[in-house]
Amino acid sequence: MSAIVFLIQCKDQKGLLAGISSFFAERGFNILHCQQYTDVEQGQYFMRLKLEDHGDMPRATLEQEFAAFASQLKLVWSVRYTNVPYRVALLVTKASHCPYDLLLRELEGELKCDIPLIIGNHADLESMAKQFNKPFYHLPITPETKQAQEQQIKNLLAEYQIDLVVMARYMQILSEQFVEEFRGRVINIHHGFLPAFQGAKPYHQAYERGVKLIGATAHYATAELDEGPIIEQDVERVMHDNSPEDLVMIGKDIERLVLARAVKAHIEHRIIISGRRTIVFSEGA
Amino acid sequence: MSAIVFLIQCKDQKGLLAGISSFFAERGFNILHCQQYTDVEQGQYFMRLKLEDHGDMPRATLEQEFAAFASQLKLVWSVRYTNVPYRVALLVTKASHCPYDLLLRELEGELKCDIPLIIGNHADLESMAKQFNKPFYHLPITPETKQAQEQQIKNLLAEYQIDLVVMARYMQILSEQFVEEFRGRVINIHHGFLPAFQGAKPYHQAYERGVKLIGATAHYATAELDEGPIIEQDVERVMHDNSPEDLVMIGKDIERLVLARAVKAHIEHRIIISGRRTIVFSEGA
Amino acid sequence: MSAIVFLIQCKDQKGLLAGISSFFAERGFNILHCQQYTDVEQGQYFMRLKLEDHGDMPRATLEQEFAAFASQLKLVWSVRYTNVPYRVALLVTKASHCPYDLLLRELEGELKCDIPLIIGNHADLESMAKQFNKPFYHLPITPETKQAQEQQIKNLLAEYQIDLVVMARYMQILSEQFVEEFRGRVINIHHGFLPAFQGAKPYHQAYERGVKLIGATAHYATAELDEGPIIEQDVERVMHDNSPEDLVMIGKDIERLVLARAVKAHIEHRIIISGRRTIVFSEGA
Amino acid sequence: MSAIVFLIQCKDQKGLLAGISSFFAERGFNILHCQQYTDVEQGQYFMRLKLEDHGDMPRATLEQEFAAFASQLKLVWSVRYTNVPYRVALLVTKASHCPYDLLLRELEGELKCDIPLIIGNHADLESMAKQFNKPFYHLPITPETKQAQEQQIKNLLAEYQIDLVVMARYMQILSEQFVEEFRGRVINIHHGFLPAFQGAKPYHQAYERGVKLIGATAHYATAELDEGPIIEQDVERVMHDNSPEDLVMIGKDIERLVLARAVKAHIEHRIIISGRRTIVFSEGA
Repeated sequence: MSAIVFLIQCKDQKGLLAGISSFFAERGFNILHCQQYTDVEQGQYFMRLKLEDHGDMPRATLEQEFAAFASQLKLVWSVRYTNVPYRVALLVTKASHCPYDLLLRELEGELKCDIPLIIGNHADLESMAKQFNKPFYHLPITPETKQAQEQQIKNLLAEYQIDLVVMARYMQILSEQFVEEFRGRVINIHHGFLPAFQGAKPYHQAYERGVKLIGATAHYATAELDEGPIIEQDVERVMHDNSPEDLVMIGKDIERLVLARAVKAHIEHRIIISGRRTIVFSEGA
Repeated sequence: MSAIVFLIQCKDQKGLLAGISSFFAERGFNILHCQQYTDVEQGQYFMRLKLEDHGDMPRATLEQEFAAFASQLKLVWSVRYTNVPYRVALLVTKASHCPYDLLLRELEGELKCDIPLIIGNHADLESMAKQFNKPFYHLPITPETKQAQEQQIKNLLAEYQIDLVVMARYMQILSEQFVEEFRGRVINIHHGFLPAFQGAKPYHQAYERGVKLIGATAHYATAELDEGPIIEQDVERVMHDNSPEDLVMIGKDIERLVLARAVKAHIEHRIIISGRRTIVFSEGA
Repeated sequence: MSAIVFLIQCKDQKGLLAGISSFFAERGFNILHCQQYTDVEQGQYFMRLKLEDHGDMPRATLEQEFAAFASQLKLVWSVRYTNVPYRVALLVTKASHCPYDLLLRELEGELKCDIPLIIGNHADLESMAKQFNKPFYHLPITPETKQAQEQQIKNLLAEYQIDLVVMARYMQILSEQFVEEFRGRVINIHHGFLPAFQGAKPYHQAYERGVKLIGATAHYATAELDEGPIIEQDVERVMHDNSPEDLVMIGKDIERLVLARAVKAHIEHRIIISGRRTIVFSEGA
Repeated sequence: MSAIVFLIQCKDQKGLLAGISSFFAERGFNILHCQQYTDVEQGQYFMRLKLEDHGDMPRATLEQEFAAFASQLKLVWSVRYTNVPYRVALLVTKASHCPYDLLLRELEGELKCDIPLIIGNHADLESMAKQFNKPFYHLPITPETKQAQEQQIKNLLAEYQIDLVVMARYMQILSEQFVEEFRGRVINIHHGFLPAFQGAKPYHQAYERGVKLIGATAHYATAELDEGPIIEQDVERVMHDNSPEDLVMIGKDIERLVLARAVKAHIEHRIIISGRRTIVFSEGA
């Protein structure tokens, strides 16, 4: 059975739930799941609606009618159909742990998406791509070619009709123009510590500072480096007798898990971005 | 600002969300938060609605009108008003860690309830009650007096108009008749291990078995001992070098936390019991 | 730099630490790490010693001299050299999440071992083996061929000089004779719940019971099914709105992680089995 | 049975374990537990030794003989006797959750120390002190009286023979002179976020930034604010629908737990400070 998922946000106002749910009830849609959230601080309303697709109404008609309805209430909205999987591109450099994990989860059916291509600024992970029968594009980058390389990436994203770009330990900073064009459609992962460490060799710094937790954060890429809306975070406990190399290894496991959860939330159409925050509706829905 | 919280369950059917939300919209109530869940396996629908109390409609009227509406749709429902705090009785024996924790959280405002009395089958915790200026009733129990003692408890619960009974490490089994009469209104806490251990000294058994996790489960009391609907569970990691005494101590921290979370969910009117399961709506609401 | 790792256990007695550490100091070995643990309940002493291999003493000589020393103190001991990696065989059926994870970790260098072969009682995972360039042996099993099939497995383990067998979701019960012969050298993984569930479809049962945590346990295989010494356990929190399918998926992630940690502890020679318990020395060492 | 606990650190060198353990073996001491750790990066060696106190040697003699032995090997060391509990002073302001928790744990026997006095720069927690029959000293502070107030605190610490000062949400910055004088003997607790937030209302900032984890860090106080050696850290998961007030409440639970664990590690003489790091030996010992 296919389902239809709406994500909606607007200024909070009376009667929203009744109004929106009536819209779908009148058209014979069974609501499988409805989650809503009101940000009282900001006066904003958020909703995720999952409908059973009865198939009696063409999708274009549904979208047209909802657009008309939404414009009255000033709803910002988007819709996805669960039988149309997200198309996801992986950007990689040399580290394989994150892209491997995502490829495995696609294969295992844990991530219900298509990953039709992998793009690397180094060629190291070409064999990994081959293992999974994925086309691999090696697009090296130098200060001089950065702009041209990004254009090549954009061309590939267009050619492969990509919905979501995952920076799976892609050790390059995308240009402001790129992240603006793909706002809310580029996910990045980076390590995270308490306290935070600037500069090189952060795991070494964390060791020298004797931190007891190391973590990772997945967020949408924005022009401010590592400052985009947070999607998911997690930490793992470490001990004084863990070497800096242990910390790196433990960090890899957290990065894998946090990135996979963030991608899963996105491709299940469970995330609404609101300013610097994300609303991530629970996965049960 | 006071709020009104409805908990609703019924057979799943089309139009529920639109119908229920319209009922309140028509009466001018602003919906602050709505959570719903459909148990697809059982075909059951569950909802928690939090309304702003505009004060224009007497509570008796609202309840009467909703009762009429609910009977048409065969809704099972209950309502609470956030300015009427739950009244909670603590049943205790000798262990002080759980009741102390609950009393502190009441004092700190973390549990927005009233704890007007403490009942112990031993007198050991009378001083604790005194520390918090609570009346303490010492109702000892022997095989012969068990029935009479339970009657005394019931009289006290009635006298103090108690909504919820918390067995805060009360080392007695309540009679089947008692738990039936207070079905869904008695919360118990017990340790939990993987694998489970029967019989005495469970922490010692867990040590001998070399478990790596110890845990606790809070559940509603039912006639089947420790088998009632689970409200909350948690575990803590232990090591081979933790002694059985360490395990007991670690276990106390988990019991405290798990019981406090379960009581918090209940007094915030966030739990619906469905057969052997509970639906625990998230605390943010 | 290569290191030498001793695991030692014996009846607790005075002077053990001084005696053992002097043995190595007299032979010019620098002790990189020493962990010890006394099980006061059982009066047993456990030690893990990691020595810098100065290379001035042939390994055979060291082992001979230590054997003589150990027999006086009635030490039970074993030794491994970090430049001789464990050789690990994977037993699989159809589920790929655990074997995939182990193969990836070998590739990534997170598990410093060799996995020279994969044995499946079904042929489903042959392609996975091919992806990683590993020989795959398809040894189907029927009630009639069970004994013969186990003999084939044993032959392969001998041929490939296997140190450790990992049942990576191998859905067969090894014979008592097999697990006795490979006592302490077969690791198994299974799901774990609070409370435990018997019989088929445990995740479904867990859903119906409304558990809030699901987990996994890795243990050494023994003749009593799922009752061998526990190596590692973990849990993940679940919610009422997670479907049975969600629980299965979440369970896969825990199984992966728990099994990988157990294998890592074994191949780093950090585990001593003592009756039904394991002593798992910390990974930092 | 009483035990003797040595904490030792020195430059790493051959024969340390053999030498030190022989010292005690020769004097008839049974080693109950020995933990050691080598910081390979820094070339530093750390040891915690727990001896059974056979009572045949006066403590002064033992300490004298060990001092002579230690000076040869350039060991930095300290010793505690488990039958001489640490004496702990609480510094408080208005927030009661941390001091309450510590007082309860003393009462429950979870923290085996004596808390003979509470010092507050506000009088709000006098009633809490009374509940636990503890003397309470109200020492208000103004920019003008800061120095004099610290002198009063020092006088009280001397009078009550205090070993450890716990800043249990004491909202004052101790002077550089004070923390130097009590280096390694003042524990502080503060919230911690990923990313970190400067300035006022950190929980509000965390909400606005949509963090998914909030945490706390316990550390030794040093002249650099919140930058002392970390003892313990933990986090709790939060959701988009948790209000800033929820975050504060969840933060209180973490602060309580993290501070209690840090104090427990200190009074069990399990912590060695090494530059900006701490070595925290495991609690099982």
